[in-house]
This record gives sequence, C-alpha cells and structure tokens, in this order.
Amino acid sequence: MTAEVGRAPGTVGPGARHERDGWRHRHVLDVDDFTLDEIELVMATAAEMKEILARPIKKVPTLRGTSVTIIFWEASTRTRVSFEVAAKNLSADVVNIAAQASSVAKGESLVDTIRTIEALGADMIVMRHAISGAPYLAAEHFGGHILNGGDGWHAHPTQALLDLYTIRKEIGAIDGLRIAMVGDLAQGRTVRSLAYLLSKFQDVKMYFVAPPLLKMKEDILEHLRERKVQFFEETALDKVLPEVDVVYQTRIQKERFGDRIEDYEKCRGIYILTLDSLARMKTKSIVMHPLPRLEEIAMEVDQDPRAGYFRQAQNGLYVRMALLTMVL
Amino acid sequence: MTAEVGRAPGTVGPGARHERDGWRHRHVLDVDDFTLDEIELVMATAAEMKEILARPIKKVPTLRGTSVTIIFWEASTRTRVSFEVAAKNLSADVVNIAAQASSVAKGESLVDTIRTIEALGADMIVMRHAISGAPYLAAEHFGGHILNGGDGWHAHPTQALLDLYTIRKEIGAIDGLRIAMVGDLAQGRTVRSLAYLLSKFQDVKMYFVAPPLLKMKEDILEHLRERKVQFFEETALDKVLPEVDVVYQTRIQKERFGDRIEDYEKCRGIYILTLDSLARMKTKSIVMHPLPRLEEIAMEVDQDPRAGYFRQAQNGLYVRMALLTMVL
Amino acid sequence: MTAEVGRAPGTVGPGARHERDGWRHRHVLDVDDFTLDEIELVMATAAEMKEILARPIKKVPTLRGTSVTIIFWEASTRTRVSFEVAAKNLSADVVNIAAQASSVAKGESLVDTIRTIEALGADMIVMRHAISGAPYLAAEHFGGHILNGGDGWHAHPTQALLDLYTIRKEIGAIDGLRIAMVGDLAQGRTVRSLAYLLSKFQDVKMYFVAPPLLKMKEDILEHLRERKVQFFEETALDKVLPEVDVVYQTRIQKERFGDRIEDYEKCRGIYILTLDSLARMKTKSIVMHPLPRLEEIAMEVDQDPRAGYFRQAQNGLYVRMALLTMVL
Repeated sequence: MTAEVGRAPGTVGPGARHERDGWRHRHVLDVDDFTLDEIELVMATAAEMKEILARPIKKVPTLRGTSVTIIFWEASTRTRVSFEVAAKNLSADVVNIAAQASSVAKGESLVDTIRTIEALGADMIVMRHAISGAPYLAAEHFGGHILNGGDGWHAHPTQALLDLYTIRKEIGAIDGLRIAMVGDLAQGRTVRSLAYLLSKFQDVKMYFVAPPLLKMKEDILEHLRERKVQFFEETALDKVLPEVDVVYQTRIQKERFGDRIEDYEKCRGIYILTLDSLARMKTKSIVMHPLPRLEEIAMEVDQDPRAGYFRQAQNGLYVRMALLTMVL
Repeated sequence: MTAEVGRAPGTVGPGARHERDGWRHRHVLDVDDFTLDEIELVMATAAEMKEILARPIKKVPTLRGTSVTIIFWEASTRTRVSFEVAAKNLSADVVNIAAQASSVAKGESLVDTIRTIEALGADMIVMRHAISGAPYLAAEHFGGHILNGGDGWHAHPTQALLDLYTIRKEIGAIDGLRIAMVGDLAQGRTVRSLAYLLSKFQDVKMYFVAPPLLKMKEDILEHLRERKVQFFEETALDKVLPEVDVVYQTRIQKERFGDRIEDYEKCRGIYILTLDSLARMKTKSIVMHPLPRLEEIAMEVDQDPRAGYFRQAQNGLYVRMALLTMVL
Repeated sequence: MTAEVGRAPGTVGPGARHERDGWRHRHVLDVDDFTLDEIELVMATAAEMKEILARPIKKVPTLRGTSVTIIFWEASTRTRVSFEVAAKNLSADVVNIAAQASSVAKGESLVDTIRTIEALGADMIVMRHAISGAPYLAAEHFGGHILNGGDGWHAHPTQALLDLYTIRKEIGAIDGLRIAMVGDLAQGRTVRSLAYLLSKFQDVKMYFVAPPLLKMKEDILEHLRERKVQFFEETALDKVLPEVDVVYQTRIQKERFGDRIEDYEKCRGIYILTLDSLARMKTKSIVMHPLPRLEEIAMEVDQDPRAGYFRQAQNGLYVRMALLTMVL
C-alpha cells in the first residue's frame, strides 16, 4: 500500500469492486457469500495455476512488486508454507510474522497491528487468528486484501475451496455427491467451511460421523436445513463407508480441548481408517484429510490410490495461487 | 561480501568514504555525527523512494545481488518488517536471524557472530541489540555496512530520521519547532535520538513531559545546554498542549522495568491523550508515536487528522529505503 | 515438485541418475559413497561459484523457479543461513521451517512432514535432524532432492566438503596431509564426516586428540583401519602441533551432554589454542573450526594469518551453492 494510511486508498478501497468475470471479492474471509459462478472461477483459475507449475520455470510475474505479509497468531506450518510458496511462485515479496514474537506480545490491539502492517507496505495480509471473526475486523481497517487462513472454529475458506477442487478433480461433479465428515466436527473449522460450501450444490448428502462431544454445531445444521440439504448424524463409521464418494477424516485436535484432557482421551482413536475400512469403500472414492495426520488414518492406507490427502495438500498450492491473483 | 574475510575488503573497507553529494557514512550507527546537509540528503532521497512506491510496480533493482542480514537480539516486529520490506523493494536478498534461537544462545561473542555473518555473504547487517554501543563494536569488525535498528536505551537513528521526515512533511520547517516529548524519556531511545537530531536546527523548543522516575537523562540535557537549545522539564501535559506543533507520545515500556513492577504501575496511565487533549492542541499540529500503542493514546484520537502515527510508520519505509541505498 | 505426489516423479525420481561428468547423486546424505572424481567435481564447481560471487551482481538465475525448503529440527543459524544465502544467490525461492514451531509439534511423523513439504511445492529440502539417519528416511519418501545439514552425531556432509575445499585451498594437495582433530570427537559429526572423507586420499595421517570420554567412535576407527589410514589417538595437544598441517579444533558441545554436566565440566577447557600453540605450529599450516567458537580458541589467535575459521565459513557458501546446483 503506498496510498497514505488513513486517506482514501484508491482503487483497492472498500468501495471498489472487481467485476471481471463476475468476481467481486476484495478479501477472502469466508465462502458463505461466494456464488456458484465465483466458485467455478476459482476452480478454473486454480487449474490454470496447475499448468503454470508444470512449466520448466515455475514462476510468473503476476504479483511482482506486491508485498504479502503472512501473520499467524496460531502456528500452522502447512497453511503458512502453502501461501508463502504460492505468493513466491507469483513473484510477490513475502514477509512472515510469528505473532507470538511480535508487538502483539506487547499488548497491541489487532486493529493497530493491521493498520501498522498496512503502513509498512503490505498489499495483502494472510492471517490466522484464534478468535472467530478476527479477519472481518481486520478487513474493516485494511486498505488492501485480507485472506483468511483460519479463524478460531469459524472458517477456513481456502481449505474449503481446495477441498472442493480436490473432490471435483478426483470424483467429478459435485451435484449428487455423498460425503462423510468424520472426527472433530465441533471444533474443526475445515469441515464446517466445507459443509457450507457444498450446501450450494444440488443433491449433496452429508454424513456427519462424530462422538456426541464433537458433533457438528447447530448453526451449520440449521443452515443445511434451510438449504434443504440432506444430512445424517452418525456415531458409527463402518456402515457409512459403502455409501460415500468421499471420507473426509479429521484429527481430534488436542490443542482445542484445553484442560479437558479426559474428553480428549475419550474421543481420540474412535474412528481410525484402516485397510479394512478401505475394503468397505467404493472403488471410485477418496479419503481426504486436512493434515497433519496422527493415528486416525493408518500408515498402510497411504499405498492405496484412494488415499488423496497428499494430492489434496498439493491442490492447495494451485487454489491459493488462484485466490492471490483473483483478489488483486 | 565476497572479499576474503580478514583481508582488505576493498572499496567498502573502513578507509573508504562515500563523498557523493557530501555523504560520508559507511554505517548508520547514530545521528549525532550527521551534518545538516547529510540530513537534507536523507530527506530528499526518502522523498524519491516515496515516488518509487507510487508506481504500478513498486520495486527497483538498486540492491539486486546484495545480501542483507537482519539480526535482532531484541524482538521488534515493526522495525524488522520495515527494514525487510524496504530491502525487498530495492531487490535485495534478505535473511532474518532471531538471535535468541541462534548460535548466540550457544554463547558465541558478538564479534564472532558479526564476522560469521560476513563470511556467510552479508553485504549489510541491520541489527538491534540490548547493549548500548553494540553496533559500534560490530562496525569495527564488519567489512560491509551496519544499520543500527536500536541499541539499548542509547539510540535508534533510523527512527529519529523518519520522525524528522514526518515533522517536515506535516508541519514544515524544523527551525522554530515547538515539540513535546511525553512518557518514558529515560528509557525511550526514540525520543533521545530525536532530541539529539533536532538540536542541530535553529530555535527549536522542547518540552520534556515525564514523571520523575522517567525524566530525560542528563547526557541529553547537557548536550542541549551546550547547543543552547531551549528545553523545559514538565510533569503536567495539559498546559503544554496548546504551545506545541508536535506531541510525541511514547509507551511506558513494561519490559524495560524488569522486576520493578511497582514503578511501572506508578508510571503507566499518567499521560493519556484523548479527544480532550486534541481540543487543546493547535489546528495545525500532529500527534506522533513510535508504536506499538497501548492505552496512552485513546482509540478515538485515530479519527482526527492530526493523528499522525500510522503515517509516521509509513514514512519509515521511505527513510529506510533511502538509508539502505545511501550507505552502499 | 509439480508431478503428482505419490505418482512417478519423472526425471528426478529415484530411478533417475545424473550422469553429467560422472556425478550420480540425487541427494547429499553423506560423503561415504562419493568417488574421488565426484569430490573433485564439487571442488571445481565451488571454485566457479566463488568467481560468480566476485562479480558486481552476485546472483545467477540457475535455480530460478526452484523452491527450496529449509527445515531444521535442531537450531543452527550458521548452516541454515549459509544454505539460505547460497540458494538465494542462485535465484531459488526459499522457505524456512523451524520444526519446533511446526506440525511436528502436533505429533506428525517425519515421513508425513516430508511428503507434505513435497506436496507444498518443494523441489529441494535442506534438513537438520537430531536422529542419525533421518535424511535417508526422508530421501525414500521425497521425489526431489534432500541435502543433509547434519543428522545427530552421524554426518554433516556439506561441512566435510567445505572443510576439504578449505584445506585444498590453504594447504594444497590432500595426499600426504597431516591433520589433528581436537576436542569432542565422539559427538562432533563434523570431524566424523571429515575423517571419512579424508580416508579416500593417499598417505593422510590423522591425530585424534580427545579426552577419554570424547574419543573418536569405533566405527570410524574401524573404517580407517580397513582403508589402511594411519591414525594416532592422543590426549595431549602440544606434542602434536609441530607435526600437522591442520589443527581442526571443535567446541565441546554442552547441549550434547544432556544431564551429564559434570562430564561437560571435566572436558571443556582441556584444549585451548593460544598464541603459544601457534608458536609450535608450522609456518604453513592452518587452524580450522566449524564455529561457533567459545573459549577453545583464544581471541588473539584471530590476528594470525593461520586462523582459517572465518575463511572456512565463507567457503561453505561456495560449496553449498555448488551442491545445490549439482543435485539438480
């Protein structure tokens, strides 16, 4: 940002809208207000990015001279590195801030941090924050572009879009999809965002497989009812496996249980995908996982072509390159 | 540095002097030996840098192939990021070292660290160190260029220069300036460096507003007396406000009090700038702050055009780009 | 890597071999399987890199579009920075991961971490790991190139090669070399790798000077016996000094003693190189040290032209640039 801070930030200001091809998002905060056309545009742009990365020199000058600041209040190697490589492939300059070690530790407010990052020249901020909704507050005070890399249990929009890209590529059309989401559905923002995104399509059936403590939250279920999406809440995994095109496994996240170690111990290890599980699944189906994976998918599953989680991580690079290009 | 370490380092050696336009500094350690002409040159070069950043592609090849190492023994997101973005805008390659995690933790001496960074290819070192004077020691053992990003309570020269740039741009001529420095003047290197720099100009009046525990140190006062600069030591802020062009507010830095928590609690919150404070100030005046800001400037002040602290942070980028270019 | 993860990774796959000039290594894991011709090729390529760094613009486009991930499970500023500058000089994009702060902390396995880094676009991984052999496991699961930046007490191949480069440059031919390795030979992977590498040459005599607790391990001695390399185990340093071309001093590494503080206190400070030591050494000889240095080389030794340790660190840059180029 070279416009004066606190003055009208010009074409990237809050009033500006990108109308190219129907795309109208200055930020990527959540997927809830994406139209189907916009989602299609992300998918198509991601496919273009994949082609770029297949060239001998995997770099394009699209974001040359653009300054991207990645600030994560919660550790996440995977999402951070994925955004960093994506931005560098597009020739952006990237600055990393580990918020624990930053001025935030001196007690600075989120708004001050964001306004300062703008003053220090950032055109885009990729942020992850423990507080749900934090990126919305940031977007109100930033003249550039915010990309939400995960906020509390709320949303993880780039993950949802890369998940969708993966399903499209591996299974085909989303209309008519049968998907099981498994594990920590209460605190896993990944599955929440994906459920939201899939609700925009036709005839999708969702199976939420979770222990009572970790059931999908009511706000999502309510949304699905409104959209007339069929969903089933299950506690047993095995009977669901033959029905679905996608098993979306998640990690029971110890760090989200805080002091409730007993609850954590009760929940982990309930749903472990093994070769036996694969045997019950359709031939054309896929196992997904946002990674990192602990014990919830046995290592031997990796050898099966239906193990899609590392391909899924790879797709994240294409989708994030696409989004970095599209918001600009 | 490609010259052999420990051998004559060629044109950047200690004997070399840059005479272009009267500039003769190989390092930026402090502002005390800057002439008025040199200061003017920094201001003019910073203004050029601002123009560069207004272009569609905000990047120039000035430092292409130059390796800049940023090593901070004390955490400072703001100064570190400002230097990093500045160097990248000039196409330098930047390496960050968090000294806590480095060989320093294994007990290595400062001199060995600096000589090693030189051996590892650095042309420039930007450093922050808790010990006052550390950058001078570093400069004696480094064949390249040292930029001091703050040393103990001693100096913070790039901050002083960006403060000066901000005052010039917002208020006009420095000669005749009336400025209040408020808060922790004993341990705040920012205000120390700025007082020193302003003492080079004509008819500047300084109001030092601080509780007895945090008064401006005697070395600075002695220097001002020698230069015949008028200054006033105050404990009340309100009566000073109508007199000045600049209110330079500072944070009471908890981390500098160590165990003396009681002293910290006594001092924080004494001088809080509010809309009431602004009402007493001149129409053409400015509130400055080196940031991060805690409670010492109320959030509602941000809406007033006289709130200059985020513009001040932005100016840091121009000034640091200027200095990185000029030392070379 | 843009090839599908888990699919055939094309020309960089495990089956591929680089035959150019006899070079056949996809990874740099250890020096033990390097032929003399390959070692010569590294030396010659490093010399070319030195020439490149002597140019006004010290940057070549060799690795443009190549993504290098540096992941260190153990802190090492020196090796990390050396690789980072080397990669950036070659125009690669570099991503740093501090493994302590990463998904590894969430319990992810090494193999998953490596496969994920591949999915996130890395063409090369530079890694340091506390577990000996970890880079071999990584190489089995990575479609790109692994460079070992140190694994436990096992090996530190790039250090051994830069040590060899330094000896060649300062002393001349390796055949006929007399070298003393001093200090912690049991746990110092640097001296282990160097002993291994030197065993490939003719008529090299090694003097291992260490207290009983820190003697060179039997696996290396056994290897030297097989290769018919003459070696001598000593406890006194002074009598060895006049005999040798190289004194390779090492730090007694406190962090490798764990709880055994008493053993550490017994061993440190036994062998300190001073001006007196230099007086016993040949006029044409050299003191080496992998750095960081504590008290084991007195500061006044730095002034002697035989103090080669900072030049040695500098050579690391050339050798690592060479290796990054050669594996590709």
